[in-house]
Amino acid sequence: MRGVKKLIDDPNAVVEDSLRGFAQVHDAHVRVHGLADDGPLYVTRAAVAPPMTVAVISGGGSGHDPLHAGFIGEGMLDAAVPGPMFTSPTADAIAAAIRAVDVGAGVLAIVKNYTGDVLNFDMAAELAELDGIEVSQVLVNDDVAVEDSTWTAGRRGVAGTVLVEKIAGAAAARGDDLADVTAIAERVVTNVRSMGVALAPGTVPHVGKPGFDLGEDEIEIGIGIHGEPGRRRIPMASAAEITWQLLEPVTADLGLTGGERVLLFVNGMGGTPLSELYLVYAHARALLEAQGVTVARSLVGNYVTSLEMQGASVTVLRLDDELKSLWDAPVNTPALRW
Amino acid sequence: MRGVKKLIDDPNAVVEDSLRGFAQVHDAHVRVHGLADDGPLYVTRAAVAPPMTVAVISGGGSGHDPLHAGFIGEGMLDAAVPGPMFTSPTADAIAAAIRAVDVGAGVLAIVKNYTGDVLNFDMAAELAELDGIEVSQVLVNDDVAVEDSTWTAGRRGVAGTVLVEKIAGAAAARGDDLADVTAIAERVVTNVRSMGVALAPGTVPHVGKPGFDLGEDEIEIGIGIHGEPGRRRIPMASAAEITWQLLEPVTADLGLTGGERVLLFVNGMGGTPLSELYLVYAHARALLEAQGVTVARSLVGNYVTSLEMQGASVTVLRLDDELKSLWDAPVNTPALRW
Repeated sequence: MRGVKKLIDDPNAVVEDSLRGFAQVHDAHVRVHGLADDGPLYVTRAAVAPPMTVAVISGGGSGHDPLHAGFIGEGMLDAAVPGPMFTSPTADAIAAAIRAVDVGAGVLAIVKNYTGDVLNFDMAAELAELDGIEVSQVLVNDDVAVEDSTWTAGRRGVAGTVLVEKIAGAAAARGDDLADVTAIAERVVTNVRSMGVALAPGTVPHVGKPGFDLGEDEIEIGIGIHGEPGRRRIPMASAAEITWQLLEPVTADLGLTGGERVLLFVNGMGGTPLSELYLVYAHARALLEAQGVTVARSLVGNYVTSLEMQGASVTVLRLDDELKSLWDAPVNTPALRW
Repeated sequence: MRGVKKLIDDPNAVVEDSLRGFAQVHDAHVRVHGLADDGPLYVTRAAVAPPMTVAVISGGGSGHDPLHAGFIGEGMLDAAVPGPMFTSPTADAIAAAIRAVDVGAGVLAIVKNYTGDVLNFDMAAELAELDGIEVSQVLVNDDVAVEDSTWTAGRRGVAGTVLVEKIAGAAAARGDDLADVTAIAERVVTNVRSMGVALAPGTVPHVGKPGFDLGEDEIEIGIGIHGEPGRRRIPMASAAEITWQLLEPVTADLGLTGGERVLLFVNGMGGTPLSELYLVYAHARALLEAQGVTVARSLVGNYVTSLEMQGASVTVLRLDDELKSLWDAPVNTPALRW
């Protein structure tokens, strides 16, 4: 069985063991806190942010690399808080990250809509506010597949999170205040939608068996990034058909019309070759262009993964001039750089 | 069975269908030739190289994304020639790429040591030389696992190819002539070694079944990037043990001694989470440091894949000041950028 064999030592220490290597490779970008001592585990930029710049942070269960720690650096995140695999980080760890990155201008927390994350980020914000730190939060809920899910009330936050983090980070870097950075992040959330497909599941190390079962010739449309159930299981189909089944609900929910400009993002779930992601991208782009929609910006790659799940998601962000220019602004992180 | 279901349409057109998306996403970097017409299939930079700059090209069977086309751009490759899946490109296609990128200073071809590639690059060089283009070739054979293999006389060329392409590209970009760029590339080949492990196989689309079989609790040490047999099959082991089994032959073959500086590269085979690659990196670095070797530069990620194979390889490049500074030089390609 694929995915069950893993390059790990202790299944319960994978997050820490991996962050040790991550810290070494990216020591120019990041500092990992809580590895050497027993303090809370969180990751910050190596360099201190300029005075009076809003700090942008995110976090959530591990297993979605490079999300979130891979997006720490100039023009994107100031800190990330990795929880255990597929499990929310504690409020204490989030609060420690908030305290570490605030330089007096306040902190925006970008939270994927999962019940554990929502609760713990809320509690962390309260803790930080007791210390006089201003904290705002934006909830990402871009997954149109289902309302309510295994660990979610309302829609799940998935690949669109990368776009929120990039654009909010750019707004902070140009000097926007906390209210403005928050408003920009909310504008991204309002205009971004995603849907994914699974061809084969991933395996959480300490669980030791795949997160769900799929028949030999079966795929799941609308899968969540933790393997949560989607909309339906269908027999294996062509990339053209699958792309249509992902993109149609996305554009319908967005209410996209001809003449609009979008960013098209095809995200890999971790175990699907890049070549297949580019192939899906070409289909999605052709479908959008047939509706008169202009694909003005693109992103293709494994950015919000589900361990080694095979599959992909399609994300569409409606662009305006400001969002486009914030997307284009320089970014210098381990996983996204231009 | 994982890997058998794929996001594709026609299993025999995956390379072209994928390159269509690749061309759209990276239109600022690359042009893909031979998609719209029936001409030879190759990929070049979008921008013409500066006059009298040596052009650096590579190529080989597809299925190893982002190698090679993902490394086209400033400071790295001028062109790449993708063959069918795991199959060498034709001499005609390679010759067309050589003609397209030569600006009068000659062309260096970086060739992974597989019999088909060697033959076709040789023939292409002869064709180009008939047109008065000076061509030199460097053969990459960094895989210490086995002498001779399924498609190779001598050692196979694997992940070290990325380092040869980056450093040769930097030498060309700084204005070295063909003899000097070739000598630099050969110095990288002389000083780089790799070895890989497979936990689970990938599947070539038009074949439709996995390239090899591995037991449920079995892994293969010394695997090739096409699933060629390695040194031995062993029961699943810890990441610490596996890393040792990969690194020990690499450092022994290099004759590394305390006080030397290296670049350490942990490469994913396509279906293994990034978190596991960082974990392997931390082990490899600790082993090197215990020998008194300094890890001065690092690279971790999926750069030379084998479709969705699960596994990784460890590559060590002995650095000198010049190789280090060429590694550090700016690079701006779809898959590698700083």
